[in-house]
Amino acid sequence: MDKMPLRVRFSETDGIGVVWHGEYIRYFEDGRESFGENFGMPYLEVFKEGYVIPIVDVACQYVHSLHAGERGTIETRFIDTPAAKIIFEYAVYKEPEHLLCATGTTTQVFVKKDTGELELSTPEFYLNWKKKWNLIK
Amino acid sequence: MDKMPLRVRFSETDGIGVVWHGEYIRYFEDGRESFGENFGMPYLEVFKEGYVIPIVDVACQYVHSLHAGERGTIETRFIDTPAAKIIFEYAVYKEPEHLLCATGTTTQVFVKKDTGELELSTPEFYLNWKKKWNLIK
Amino acid sequence: MDKMPLRVRFSETDGIGVVWHGEYIRYFEDGRESFGENFGMPYLEVFKEGYVIPIVDVACQYVHSLHAGERGTIETRFIDTPAAKIIFEYAVYKEPEHLLCATGTTTQVFVKKDTGELELSTPEFYLNWKKKWNLIK
Amino acid sequence: MDKMPLRVRFSETDGIGVVWHGEYIRYFEDGRESFGENFGMPYLEVFKEGYVIPIVDVACQYVHSLHAGERGTIETRFIDTPAAKIIFEYAVYKEPEHLLCATGTTTQVFVKKDTGELELSTPEFYLNWKKKWNLIK
Repeated sequence: MDKMPLRVRFSETDGIGVVWHGEYIRYFEDGRESFGENFGMPYLEVFKEGYVIPIVDVACQYVHSLHAGERGTIETRFIDTPAAKIIFEYAVYKEPEHLLCATGTTTQVFVKKDTGELELSTPEFYLNWKKKWNLIK
Repeated sequence: MDKMPLRVRFSETDGIGVVWHGEYIRYFEDGRESFGENFGMPYLEVFKEGYVIPIVDVACQYVHSLHAGERGTIETRFIDTPAAKIIFEYAVYKEPEHLLCATGTTTQVFVKKDTGELELSTPEFYLNWKKKWNLIK
Repeated sequence: MDKMPLRVRFSETDGIGVVWHGEYIRYFEDGRESFGENFGMPYLEVFKEGYVIPIVDVACQYVHSLHAGERGTIETRFIDTPAAKIIFEYAVYKEPEHLLCATGTTTQVFVKKDTGELELSTPEFYLNWKKKWNLIK
Repeated sequence: MDKMPLRVRFSETDGIGVVWHGEYIRYFEDGRESFGENFGMPYLEVFKEGYVIPIVDVACQYVHSLHAGERGTIETRFIDTPAAKIIFEYAVYKEPEHLLCATGTTTQVFVKKDTGELELSTPEFYLNWKKKWNLIK
């Protein structure tokens, strides 16, 4: 699990003074990138093997609002699956109260860049990465 | 059902040249606002009755990419529910091929602005609006 | 001069309920794209001749605020220059009052994509386009 | 002068893979907020004295591009003026090369919230703050 600090920008708030709900998709991406850095996600190999890994599904549930200037934490969890998919779960907290503000999920798939074909079995290099980091349930 | 035209802005595309997945949340909001205008959503009464109607849940599924300058349609459907919720379904198409690019849902609830309390029964004015537009299943 | 209609999105407003000042840069881009379409800007030739035309300078002056749901007009004017530059001036109005909300300018240059070199003399195809549309002062 | 670290988000890049030019306005706001925190900008007093301090002018000059995942620094300088204005200058660098990517300026004014009137003389509390931090030239 990855934790990264969050600071709400004024430009992220909407006309009623709270973070606009769409901005959480950006927070999830921040969390995913932070996870990727800290767990050495094999993005170079994704590229070398000719894949792209588009997001095919995103969902977000809102619990409490965040306001400009507030600080928080983005928690990003890797969810293992035998399918050829990359699934993350997110939780955004307001700090220092550690108040849950939002939860969410993203799903990515492996697509062959050349042909646009969906990869149905998990690529070897990705399995190896999961094993290396002990991410297989 | 509401249909509104979409034109992809360059600033909405990401580093790989397609519309960034988070922008679809904005497209859904565009669709919702268009629906609200065309179906006379009683936003004024929401306000007068002391409610706010925050989004508590959003989900998006991605099927095909959109690129800068491309045109599309945002279809917004009202989904009736006996619960005190406002539910919309969305479909984003690339035109003129009418190629489905994304689908999604949003759920809003009624919250008393003063107390922050969740309203558990559908407010009268909202029921009346649904009846007037024949939106009750 | 190009005129395009504008409708303020809720997500474009900030924590004090008016359009966030940075969004006007997006409005300018909308205006520039609309101008490009209506005046047949030779973007294909820019590409074929191996150029990119990055923005090197943007400026915006704010006069009146815009709010969610309000409608306006983006006016985009081509400003001719003997230099190898593409200069546009913008004016954003609130309608139907035709109240001036913001003015601005962008400057683009011609850069050789291969070498990253700045082009110092106006490319022939661009001169021809300006002549065709009678845009030379 | 304030220095804050920058990390380029994927969602900030545009269709040609570099940070979209409008995102620098957000970087400037990040820099301004960081300055405000570190120099104890008297925002509470702005509010208590009945002022808002809208941006009336922003300008940005682009020198080098930034790409997704790159790191940088936002430098924010307070520019003193005898006028009733708040002026900041910004410089965005790519790190660790310390390569200048963009420069810019913002100007804010004091407006009486009640009446919308422009304040023509610098408010006392703001002068005191400048003196306290030795920001008067």
